[in-house]
Order: sequence, then structure tokens, then C-alpha cells
Amino acid sequence: MSDGVGKVETRVARIALPPEGFALERGGVLRELEIAYETYGDLAEDRRNVIFICTALSGDAHAAGYHTDPEKDPGWWEAMIGPGRGIDTRYYHVVCANILGGCKGTTGPRSIDPATGRPYGARFPEMTVADIVETHCLLLGHLGITHLAAVVGGSFGGMQVLEWAVRRPAMMDRCVCIATAASLSAQALAFDSVARNMITSDPDWCDGDYYGRGAGPAKGLAQARQLGHITYLSQDIMKSRFGRERRADTGDEEGGVGAPSEFQVSSYLEYQGMKFVNRFDANSYLRIMRAMDDFDLATRYPGGLEEAFAPVAAKLLVVAVSSDWLFPPEQSKEIANALLRAGKAVSYCLIKAPYGHDAFLVDIDNLVSVVHAFLPWVGEGRAAADLANEVPELPTGGRASSRADAAKGSLRHADVKFATGAEREVIARMIAPGARVLDIGCGHGELLALLDARRGASGIGVDIDLRQVVQVLNRGYDIFQEDIDGGLAMIPDGAYDCAILSETLQVVQRPRLVLNEMLRVAREGIVSFPNFGNYGLIWQLLRSGRMPVGKALPFQWYNTPNIHLFTLRDFELLCREDSIRILETVALSDARLGKSLLSLGLRNLGADRVLVRVTRP
Amino acid sequence: MSDGVGKVETRVARIALPPEGFALERGGVLRELEIAYETYGDLAEDRRNVIFICTALSGDAHAAGYHTDPEKDPGWWEAMIGPGRGIDTRYYHVVCANILGGCKGTTGPRSIDPATGRPYGARFPEMTVADIVETHCLLLGHLGITHLAAVVGGSFGGMQVLEWAVRRPAMMDRCVCIATAASLSAQALAFDSVARNMITSDPDWCDGDYYGRGAGPAKGLAQARQLGHITYLSQDIMKSRFGRERRADTGDEEGGVGAPSEFQVSSYLEYQGMKFVNRFDANSYLRIMRAMDDFDLATRYPGGLEEAFAPVAAKLLVVAVSSDWLFPPEQSKEIANALLRAGKAVSYCLIKAPYGHDAFLVDIDNLVSVVHAFLPWVGEGRAAADLANEVPELPTGGRASSRADAAKGSLRHADVKFATGAEREVIARMIAPGARVLDIGCGHGELLALLDARRGASGIGVDIDLRQVVQVLNRGYDIFQEDIDGGLAMIPDGAYDCAILSETLQVVQRPRLVLNEMLRVAREGIVSFPNFGNYGLIWQLLRSGRMPVGKALPFQWYNTPNIHLFTLRDFELLCREDSIRILETVALSDARLGKSLLSLGLRNLGADRVLVRVTRP
Repeated sequence: MSDGVGKVETRVARIALPPEGFALERGGVLRELEIAYETYGDLAEDRRNVIFICTALSGDAHAAGYHTDPEKDPGWWEAMIGPGRGIDTRYYHVVCANILGGCKGTTGPRSIDPATGRPYGARFPEMTVADIVETHCLLLGHLGITHLAAVVGGSFGGMQVLEWAVRRPAMMDRCVCIATAASLSAQALAFDSVARNMITSDPDWCDGDYYGRGAGPAKGLAQARQLGHITYLSQDIMKSRFGRERRADTGDEEGGVGAPSEFQVSSYLEYQGMKFVNRFDANSYLRIMRAMDDFDLATRYPGGLEEAFAPVAAKLLVVAVSSDWLFPPEQSKEIANALLRAGKAVSYCLIKAPYGHDAFLVDIDNLVSVVHAFLPWVGEGRAAADLANEVPELPTGGRASSRADAAKGSLRHADVKFATGAEREVIARMIAPGARVLDIGCGHGELLALLDARRGASGIGVDIDLRQVVQVLNRGYDIFQEDIDGGLAMIPDGAYDCAILSETLQVVQRPRLVLNEMLRVAREGIVSFPNFGNYGLIWQLLRSGRMPVGKALPFQWYNTPNIHLFTLRDFELLCREDSIRILETVALSDARLGKSLLSLGLRNLGADRVLVRVTRP
Repeated sequence: MSDGVGKVETRVARIALPPEGFALERGGVLRELEIAYETYGDLAEDRRNVIFICTALSGDAHAAGYHTDPEKDPGWWEAMIGPGRGIDTRYYHVVCANILGGCKGTTGPRSIDPATGRPYGARFPEMTVADIVETHCLLLGHLGITHLAAVVGGSFGGMQVLEWAVRRPAMMDRCVCIATAASLSAQALAFDSVARNMITSDPDWCDGDYYGRGAGPAKGLAQARQLGHITYLSQDIMKSRFGRERRADTGDEEGGVGAPSEFQVSSYLEYQGMKFVNRFDANSYLRIMRAMDDFDLATRYPGGLEEAFAPVAAKLLVVAVSSDWLFPPEQSKEIANALLRAGKAVSYCLIKAPYGHDAFLVDIDNLVSVVHAFLPWVGEGRAAADLANEVPELPTGGRASSRADAAKGSLRHADVKFATGAEREVIARMIAPGARVLDIGCGHGELLALLDARRGASGIGVDIDLRQVVQVLNRGYDIFQEDIDGGLAMIPDGAYDCAILSETLQVVQRPRLVLNEMLRVAREGIVSFPNFGNYGLIWQLLRSGRMPVGKALPFQWYNTPNIHLFTLRDFELLCREDSIRILETVALSDARLGKSLLSLGLRNLGADRVLVRVTRP
């Protein structure tokens, strides 16, 4: 970690409040407000290169660097923040602050209530996520910052990011929400409810007035944290880390005779519980948990999430973690779907990580790539040369380099997507200038880039592979990571001028469904595919007695991703059956005989590839 | 429920013990032993129609019928047990008993310790699942029962079933384990560890000596049960039952001003916790939970589960529930895999139910079908006529009736499996008499039945659809429900004489993998497939310009399950490439020209279907 941000310190800002104090959303008032924060990286002269980091339930301002010893006290997001990391401090000025109600330097239940001269305790006013965001807004004002390049946060921090996006939309360019939700699930509420009971039924809870009266509800808080820890880890990681190993030293805690010793997972949880009691305050835990439980963007407006997102002006990136069951991917997707329906610029991706919810803190390599790809153009410190190095060049057409590799290994849609330069040119011609396009199976985003350059088209891609997501984000386009075979349910009706299925229809499980979905979400569609009616393929089949392999269909029968072969004629008949109107057909052939057949109008026999522009009347 | 077993009562058997008492596995001794039990259905004269039901963690002997009011107190497995139900009391005599250490009539911590004249409390001896099984064995002896038609149980009851199978192998014909595991996962242990802490850190716990001293650790027990309840339900069912609804009446429990009321899910959990405190004892909960935590079949022998299962003589059915995350399906599959490796007769199936772990109690229709199909031949009360009515007839060959339906709707492998009568005859001829066969993609089990009838072959099927599982079980064969595309990892090397891929290779995602897997698990393989090199198909393609549709390939390109088309020649070349030796090829054609081509030796051109027998030298 020697190349991180180095030694840092937590500072505490005493926020200047108006005489009437700071009014909280639920009616409470704070007469004094202090906020603990750290910063990393240089503030640009125009002060527009600031990234604000929102912390999770038990996080603090110390997100990166170290206070005294790099080994002992690295920041909680050390791997994400620093020179050359996901949030690159060579370009960005990063601010991270402890939250209202916390116990790490920002005003909270342990702070002295100026009205009584004693700690607030359980009398600390009810607070919400909106209050957290507003106090952080005051901090930024205090620091002379009025614009944010991005707001970034995971878990409860992601909820704060959403609140920022709807409450202060003009203030930021981009938002990144990781492993979060627009509201907690019933299951998460249930866990919190049990955790709350654990704390408040501890005899040392004293209704929250335990300061100066012994240890406070240490047992209850430790138990609550133990429970929390179970929910932060996946089933699999618990298995591989602890399995059913036993502690070597001790007997059964109930003191039974001949009983085997305690399981290691119990020891781990006990250790985590104890550690937490030493660094956190029960009142803060309850207050922040309550703010998290109550956060619910969707219920604020009759139109739900979609209406809640109406004011959003920033470009958003929503990241889910595959093994997260506390904030499951469906909840992230719900956020992204609502943003799409609200017509906002949003990208969604799913990071495969075995770790569970905590992956956003510890299992972080892919997350770093994604965040880094999403944040490259903001701020002024970024050199053009640096940008050019990092954004992969556009292939000049023809075979994509990954294609040969893909043919050997396991196959995924994204690996095998390739459209020739000629095909891409035809598609560019078919697109109206300035059109909004949806590229279904977008691969690395070459076509999106070409349509942008040639026709000024803006758009979004859909693909299944995270590597494609990183590439497309790096090019500056939006992408929705999704298995097309699951449908395009996240895209609202008629959201695009044109949807493109370039070399994709034959690789999906349910081509008929995908074709019809394409014309639900866009006024027009462009489909390109290999034509199995081509004379060359049939001749090859007859002559060799084998499934044809060649330029148009470059795979062996047993490893081809092209699982639904069809002819131009087949496609035309399906269109007729499904009341789809064909507006234009472009038949391509590389071969001399093929070209001759095409010139005679024998398209089904002559074409090796076909592009069709369709609409639903 | 008027057609259930009707009014029943719980009886208590006082078990006659030898003078030295009943010695427990961990060294403790019981001087007195009472066991509460119920029975349903008539005991056959030969006393061999008995099914013993093992209960879950907090279950009791009252599994079916009612005590006073059918609406108010139905048995906990009412939907499973009764005339015409999964466990059919017209044929079976069902016995269900409360477990050792319980608090429902069987000797446990609340019972009087004859040595002291006071309740055992925390001094109740350490007990294990083996002790539970042995005491139930004593009960059966007391009832004059020495043979069981089956032992059936879910969750912790399933663990007892496994213990029965390895500890008393000669006593039973069949075993059914539902939603269980050969040992708890690390995550489940973690939850139990937190639950245990909740009880033992309740100030009213008094080290277990709370009898006669007030309510006992009611708060702790209620909290532990609340936590348990979260783990019994799936994320989805929690969402649909409670979502984020709020209780109408109350304010925030921390007494904050202006705070919204409590969530309904909290109220539900509180209610469940309170209800449980009224019906259960904390010492029993801890003792039984400890027995469950410590149960671990795999660690008993160096060879793990496989070795532990060596003595098993019964035929087993292992059932998993898709949404169960407390006893996830992988754990059930682990049991089934180990039984397969140990060479035991086992069927495995996965029931899709949204409910979570509790599905085995409440979301039960499919489970009833599966259990019923697995248990039809045992006992003497079962009339032959009744059997004939319930076992579906063998189709006489040609198209299976589900095929036309399948072509319209969504497609699954099992739906489209069909081999003509001629193909099945060829396969029967290729199989050696008495061979052990594996039918990969076995559909309804027609082929297994034919090979049994014609060649005396025994075997097991693999298919993906639960409907097929029920049919195959009903026919009396074993089946492993599995997606072939995931491989055949559960089948040990060389376990079968012959594996069959009848009309299956072309529908899987990775045909090359499946082909090689087939020859890993069996000495020989038989593959039947449609030959895309057939002259008729090529002619149809050329003449109509469309993908051929006909007898051999009866689907449209956009809904065909045949996603990897290939020719006989393709298959031969792949065999050569993968060092697979072709022992025999049978080429079939329905057409006159096809037959002529075949007679000229032009198999690749003439055959519409091909059967190939292969081996790996």
C-alpha cells in the first residue's frame, strides 16, 4: 500500500449554523454541528474535481491512507482510493466525512447537548438520510466546494448517493451507487428489528442513558454486530473461511460433559462483536440503522421510484454484487430500471464476487475497474495523453481479436460478437442522424462509437459480460449488463428510435421473444445475421457431409454460439407471422458467385450475411 | 381437512429400561425414559407397513389429524399424511414421536431427574442425533414394530433419517430426507451461535435452572425464535408477505418524535417469538439445537460421507427446496452424490417453491406428489388395481403426447425427448442383459422400463424436470434431477455399464462435454440423434430456402430445442478427435430413397436418425 495517498488525518469542521440551528427533517433541531472529515488529492483551481465518498452503516471519515501505521490503520476503502486506483487521486480531490448521528467525530448521541450540558443519548433527534446529506452539503460549503465531479458510496452509502442525486441534482456530474437499494428489503428490516431488540433488551441499555454508567449495552451491541456480520458474508465465503472447524482450546459453553468444543465461526463472530463494542456506540448504531430502515425513495411519490428520480441530472452507475444477499442484485437493478424509465443516463453492472455484501469493501478488483472506467473524463487534471492510453482503440473492422480465442474456450455472447466493417457501415447508414439507439449485444461498444461519430447518435448498449461493460464505460457510453435471453423488461416501451441486433439474434435462446422485445422498446430495429440459405453453406454441407464452417459461421457444431440457424427467407416469414414490417433488406456476399446471385435478385441463395431494417406498423 | 386421519391423541410410552439405564452417546445416562407419540392408519398383520416420521427442531408427535378441533389444531404435516395423501394412511401405519430432550411429552430438561427429584434443567445430559434415533428405536420395540417400510423427515428430521439409514440399515426399506443436510453449514452454525447467545445472556436464564423461578429466559428465547423465523423464509416470500408495510397503531419503539410506526415484519416476528415462548422450553431448544449443530456424518470416517453411507441398505429419496437458504439444495445434492458414489439406490429432486426452508411444511403440493410416487409399492394394503390406476401407461412408441404441446410453449429438454419405437428397440438390442444403465435425459422413463422388461437392465435416469421425476419414481426407478449442461459430476467414474444419450446430445449447450462425461461414467455409450446430413433435409433447405422442418427435426428455427445440429460425419470426426471408438452404427430412414441410399452404404446422406454405440479404448 506504499503507493496510496500516504499519511492523512481526520479533521473536524465546526459548521457555522444560523441562530435557529439546523432543522432536521423529522422536526428536531441541532444547535451545534461538527463534522469529521478527511481529504485526499489536490483540489483543482476551479474546485470542480471533487469526489464525495458516502460511508456505510459503521464507516468513518478515514477512507484512505493511514494515520500512523500503513499496516495497522489503512482507510476502509484503501484499495479504491489513491493514485492510479478506481478513484484516482492524481485527478480528483476526494472528501469523505463521518455521518450525522455517528460516533467518530461528527455530532451524534454521544455529543454534548448544549441545552443540557449532558450527552444527547437517546434524546438525540430522529434523523434521516436527507439530514445526513444536508449536513454533508454544509460541510462542503464550509470547505468552499459547490460542485461535485461525483458522489460515490456503497451499501448505506449508496442510499446517501441516491438521496444526493434527487435532493441536490444540480450539484454533481456523476453518481456511483454500489451494493445498495432504494429501500431495505423485508428480510433486511427483519434482521434490523432483531438486532434492535438485542440492544434495547440488554439490561445495561438504560433507555439509551448509559453514558457514564458503565459499559452500556455491550452484550446487546456485540450480538447485534454478530448478526450483522452473518448478513455481510455469503454462504460460500462462510463455508470456505470457517466451514465446521472447531476451536481447539475450549469446551462447550453450556458446560456439558464430553461435548465438542465451540465452532470457529462462533469465535469469529464473538471477536467481531467485541471489536465493534470497542469502536462504536449503541445509540449511534440504533439511530443510523433507523435512518437506513426508514429510507424509502419509492414511497415519496405516487409514481414511485421513477417519479422520485425525475429531478436527477447526473449520469449514474449502479453496481450490484452477485453474492450479496443483504442488498441483492435485484434491488440494484430496480434502481437502474427506474432510472431508465425516468429517461436518465444510467449504466448497470453486476460484479461476480463470492464474498457477499462485504465484497464492495474487500473483494474489489473488478469494482475498481468499473468505477475507474466510469470516472475518466471528469476533472481537469486528467491529461489527454493519459486518456488515449487507457481507452482501447477502435478495431478497424473485420475480426475482433477476441474471436479466435473465444472459439477455443468457453463461449459467451460477447466473445463472439463481431460485425464486419461493411456491416457496421450499412448500419450507420440505416440510422437517422441524432437518433437514440439501443445496441442489444453491444460487445465492446465499437458500433456505439461509430454511430456516435458518424451520425451523432446517442445510445446505450446491452451486454452480458463485465469485460464489455468496462470497455463501453471507458468509451463514455452507457451500458446495461443483462442476459438478453431474460428479455428487455428493464427498457420502457418505445424508449429508443432504433434498436440494433447485430450478429445477436442467432445466439440467443429465444430469438422470437428478443425480436419482438426489440420492437417494443424501439420504433425501428436493425437485425444482422448469417444467412443459412446461402448456396455456399448448402454446397459445403452436401459436399463434405459436415455442418458448414467458414467466414459466416466460424465455429464447429459442438462449440458454436450460433444455436438458432436460419435463412433470410425464414426471417421474412417470421416477420410476416408476427406482423413485423420489413423496411429495407441489405444482402451481403464476399464471394463472386454470391454477388452474381444477389445481382439476379436471388438474395436467399446469394447472401452470406443479411441486414434487415424492420418496424411494427 | 375432513378427509384426513380425523381425531387423534398423543400417547406417552414409558419405555422399560435395563437396570443400568439408557446410556447416551456422550456418556450421560437416563434412568427413566418416556416418549410421546401418535399413530395413524392401521398396522398390517405382518407389521411391515410402518412409516416412522422424524420431526424438525421444534416439532412434536402431533403430525396429522386433530386433537379437539380440526380447524385449530391440525397436525404439523397434515397435508402430507392421510388417506390419498403423500404418505397414504390407507396403506401405511404412520408413527410420529417427540424427540429426546424435547418438551412435548418425551423425556427432556423439564422432566424430573429421578436422582434429584427436581427437573434436569441444564443438567440434562448432552445428547446427539444418534441418541434420538436409539430412543425412537426403543419406542418401536415397545410397540412391537421391528421393521419400517420407510423413515421420513424434513430439516432436522432429515438428519435423523440419515442417522437411521446408517445406524439401523437392516430395519427399513426406504428413506426420505427433505430439505436437510449431512451437517449444518457455517452460516447456519453462525445463526445458531447468535441464537444461543441470546438465550444464555438473558438475565432470567439462570444457567438453565429457571424452572419454578419465573418466566425463564423468555426474551432471549423469543429473540432466538425470531431469528430462526427469518432463516425459515425466503427473501421473496418475506417481500410478498410483509414488504415494507407499517403497523398502523404504534409509534417508534425508541420513542422518537415524529417517527413512522414499526414495520409489520417486526410485529410478525415478535408475535412468532411470543407464541413460541408459550409452547417451548429454552433448555430443550438449546439441547436440540446443539444436537443439530454437532451432527456431522462426513467427519465420522476418513472416507467422509461416502464411507459413512457404506452400511445403507434402504432405497433413498433426497428432496431439496429451491428457495431454501438454511439447508440449501447443494447440501441435499451432496447427500445424494455421496450415496451415488457409495453405490446406493438414490433419487434426488429439487422442488421449485418460493417459500424457503418452511416450504417442506407449508408449500407442499409437489412434495406430496414426489413422496407419494416414491412410496407406492411398500406395505401389503396396497391393491394391485390401485397401483395400475396410478402408474401411467407406457406409450406404445412414436410421438409422446407432450411433444406437440412442447412445440408451442416454452421448451425444456424433457418436453421434447422422444425416441421412436424403432430407436428404442435398437437401443434395447445394444444393451447387454442385466447391464447397469444410465439414461441421460430419461424423460418419463419409458426407455428405462423397456430395458428393464427386455434386458433385465437396472438403472437410473437423469432429467431436469420435476414432472419427469414423479413419473420415473412412480415406475419404480431411480432418477437424479439435474441439468445435464452442468455436467454429470455427481456420477462417479465408471459407475455404469452403459450410458444412453437418446435424442439428447443436440439439445444440450455443450455437447462435446456431455459426450465425454458419458464415457467417463460408463464403459459404453449409446447416442441417438437426428442426422443433419440427410439428403431430405438438404433438399428441403435448398428447395424452400428455409430451415428444414419435418419428422426428424419437428420444430421451427426460433423455437427448436435442437440447438446443436450436426451430421453423422460430424459425429464420427468428433469421436476421432476425442479418441472415442465407434463400436456400432445403426442408420435409420423412414423414406424409400433414404433406405436405398443406406443400402448403398451412403449413411450420411441416407439416414434421418442414427444410433451409435461408442466406447473409450
